[in-house]
Amino acid sequence: MDREEIRRHNVRALLRGVHLSGGISRADLAKQLGLNRSTIMALTAELAGAGLVREELPKDSRQQGRPSLMVLPESERIYVLAFDVAVDQLVAARIGLGGVVLERVVAARTRAGPDLDYVVDVLARLGRQLHRSAPSTAICVGVGASYCGMIEPGDGTVRFGPDLGWVDQDFGAELSRNLGLGLPVLVGNEAHLGAIAEQHRGAGTGVRNLIYLHGDVGVGGGIIAGGKLLDGDTGYGCELGHIVVNPGDGRPCGCGSRGCLEAEAGERALLDAARRPADAFGREAVRAVVRDAGRGDPVARDALRRVGDWLGIGVANLINLFNPGVVIFGGMLRDMYPGVAPYVRTRIAVNVLPVARERVRLEVSALGDDATLVGAGELGFSQLLHDPLAEYENIAEHSRERIGER
Amino acid sequence: MDREEIRRHNVRALLRGVHLSGGISRADLAKQLGLNRSTIMALTAELAGAGLVREELPKDSRQQGRPSLMVLPESERIYVLAFDVAVDQLVAARIGLGGVVLERVVAARTRAGPDLDYVVDVLARLGRQLHRSAPSTAICVGVGASYCGMIEPGDGTVRFGPDLGWVDQDFGAELSRNLGLGLPVLVGNEAHLGAIAEQHRGAGTGVRNLIYLHGDVGVGGGIIAGGKLLDGDTGYGCELGHIVVNPGDGRPCGCGSRGCLEAEAGERALLDAARRPADAFGREAVRAVVRDAGRGDPVARDALRRVGDWLGIGVANLINLFNPGVVIFGGMLRDMYPGVAPYVRTRIAVNVLPVARERVRLEVSALGDDATLVGAGELGFSQLLHDPLAEYENIAEHSRERIGER
Repeated sequence: MDREEIRRHNVRALLRGVHLSGGISRADLAKQLGLNRSTIMALTAELAGAGLVREELPKDSRQQGRPSLMVLPESERIYVLAFDVAVDQLVAARIGLGGVVLERVVAARTRAGPDLDYVVDVLARLGRQLHRSAPSTAICVGVGASYCGMIEPGDGTVRFGPDLGWVDQDFGAELSRNLGLGLPVLVGNEAHLGAIAEQHRGAGTGVRNLIYLHGDVGVGGGIIAGGKLLDGDTGYGCELGHIVVNPGDGRPCGCGSRGCLEAEAGERALLDAARRPADAFGREAVRAVVRDAGRGDPVARDALRRVGDWLGIGVANLINLFNPGVVIFGGMLRDMYPGVAPYVRTRIAVNVLPVARERVRLEVSALGDDATLVGAGELGFSQLLHDPLAEYENIAEHSRERIGER
Repeated sequence: MDREEIRRHNVRALLRGVHLSGGISRADLAKQLGLNRSTIMALTAELAGAGLVREELPKDSRQQGRPSLMVLPESERIYVLAFDVAVDQLVAARIGLGGVVLERVVAARTRAGPDLDYVVDVLARLGRQLHRSAPSTAICVGVGASYCGMIEPGDGTVRFGPDLGWVDQDFGAELSRNLGLGLPVLVGNEAHLGAIAEQHRGAGTGVRNLIYLHGDVGVGGGIIAGGKLLDGDTGYGCELGHIVVNPGDGRPCGCGSRGCLEAEAGERALLDAARRPADAFGREAVRAVVRDAGRGDPVARDALRRVGDWLGIGVANLINLFNPGVVIFGGMLRDMYPGVAPYVRTRIAVNVLPVARERVRLEVSALGDDATLVGAGELGFSQLLHDPLAEYENIAEHSRERIGER
């Protein structure tokens, strides 16, 4: 490591601190980064000069003496486009530095199993619309997309997207081309991105070990171990929906196997156990079961007990393996959780070793349905945050060219 | 980060490279560390001056031109004491820098469930014996111990050691005091240490994601995710022996629950399934079942099939979660593995998503019964490797004082 690398390291750490906090005093930055105040001043001046942050007096300063200046992200000026391919809708948003959702547009997914071209066309149209509506001084520094399937790390290919029936589709590259902003589209699995979002600014803020379970049509997972998303050797870790919880006479699973957590504790499992019609589906149907159980309906109660027990086995296994600080239930599981919590807790009491269950919290997603979108935004910011000044130069240059074309 | 931190970072990286390789050319070090040759020369000179490494011409140089000097660890001179509290024996060893086991002494564990004082007395006696027999110029730079139970991270307390019936025993501190070398004793769980040893110099060398299953009386695990041992929020991750694989009518487990991987696929499960007498136990008994099955004994074959299926469910779940490069079977499972491999492979084929099973290898421990001891050695070296020059100064000073006392 040489001097230049240190400078880049410190610039990165500072911008990251500002982005994650949404605004932080110089004094707290100095503490967080272990740097002295003059270094913080110099780094902040550099980032302010590039238009990435600004400094302000704290709004409400009752402390004695000279208050420490606040360093704030230039959220209106520096933004990313974030996309979310969800089960029933396609979402696009402009998210400002600091994680602020500035503007959002939603298109219903009117067709079942839409193909790549359809999805890319709709998303690109929404994205261009957001880009045009941004202030003329604003700069788009990245694009991130969340997809409900397995993503090839690096190139944004959807390896397997059972919900849309996609196999090996060039999603990231196609969306990038169609958007025409000259920026790559980074693609992530929805549950991985949900985990990152919850860790950055949700129910797991600051927790170094967390498990995020995301219910959709299937059950996906994002696991943060030691502060980093678990990716495995080829990027396909975290598939907690396919751990076998019922090897006896398990229900068939979309993956071709039986008794997976997703098959036993997913949306379909709950609706079948509650004897809902075969064409019932979606969040409202899940909420209805929880509601009916609350009113004393024995079939709904029994369904929640059964599904909650399988979910509890899966969660207990995860806690034994990961000793997490928090387990977060997101997506459809956020709706199901209030109805199954007692059964999940019972399994944890029975099956988790005391040392690992001593301090674990169970929570529902704090970002709610925004978790995956906010995670896509974090992905969009990742390049800027990795090397702020170099990236900013590139993008600003590029942006000036494109503004000429508008 | 300042200049001094960079220097320390580079010194650390270089010594670590030499230690893990057991000897490496300057040219390969430059490549591995991304530093130029003059920096490598300067760093090496510094470490050589401290007596931690030496340089030599390569033994067998057939390359044209001037051969790159080899940088070798001073294994005879710089050593740690490593201890292993195993089921049937207590082991102590002197392990030299570079991971060479220089000398080893073993004491049979003659008593069932021995108490802390007994174990510490025996280990300290063996340790002092090894320390005295070291050359007068040699320096003990650390002490590591492997224990078959749950260890409080940081202070070496055994929180729970079911095999010896220990609860909250001050093992590390007591052994340190009794050894009287003025060095702390770092204590780790045997399976965690086995995983580290296999990753450093065994069946998982260089693999960033690996799972090590250690069979003893119970089944323990060490999981390396993204290059680091998974520890969880309070240091108690990796408890793969207690993931539930048989929630239906599972066998009772030592943890108080039922159907855990350890209860269904551990030594007792195999011996019971093979209808061995209740007092049969140990590695030889396991090997006998595998041998009998190989000779066509239907009871032994059926026992391996049943236990192999449970083991396979556990391993498949782990692969779905961790997407590892390799799964390693150590301890008793190394003996069992040849008999159960087909059933484990079948479960992987059925239950693991294709993307995660594409490249995973299954291996038995390459270090065999030395895995945990070698891992304890790595723990012993950890402080020196963290800050080589500062630590070495401390220890050399201390050592000179003690040599005066001998």
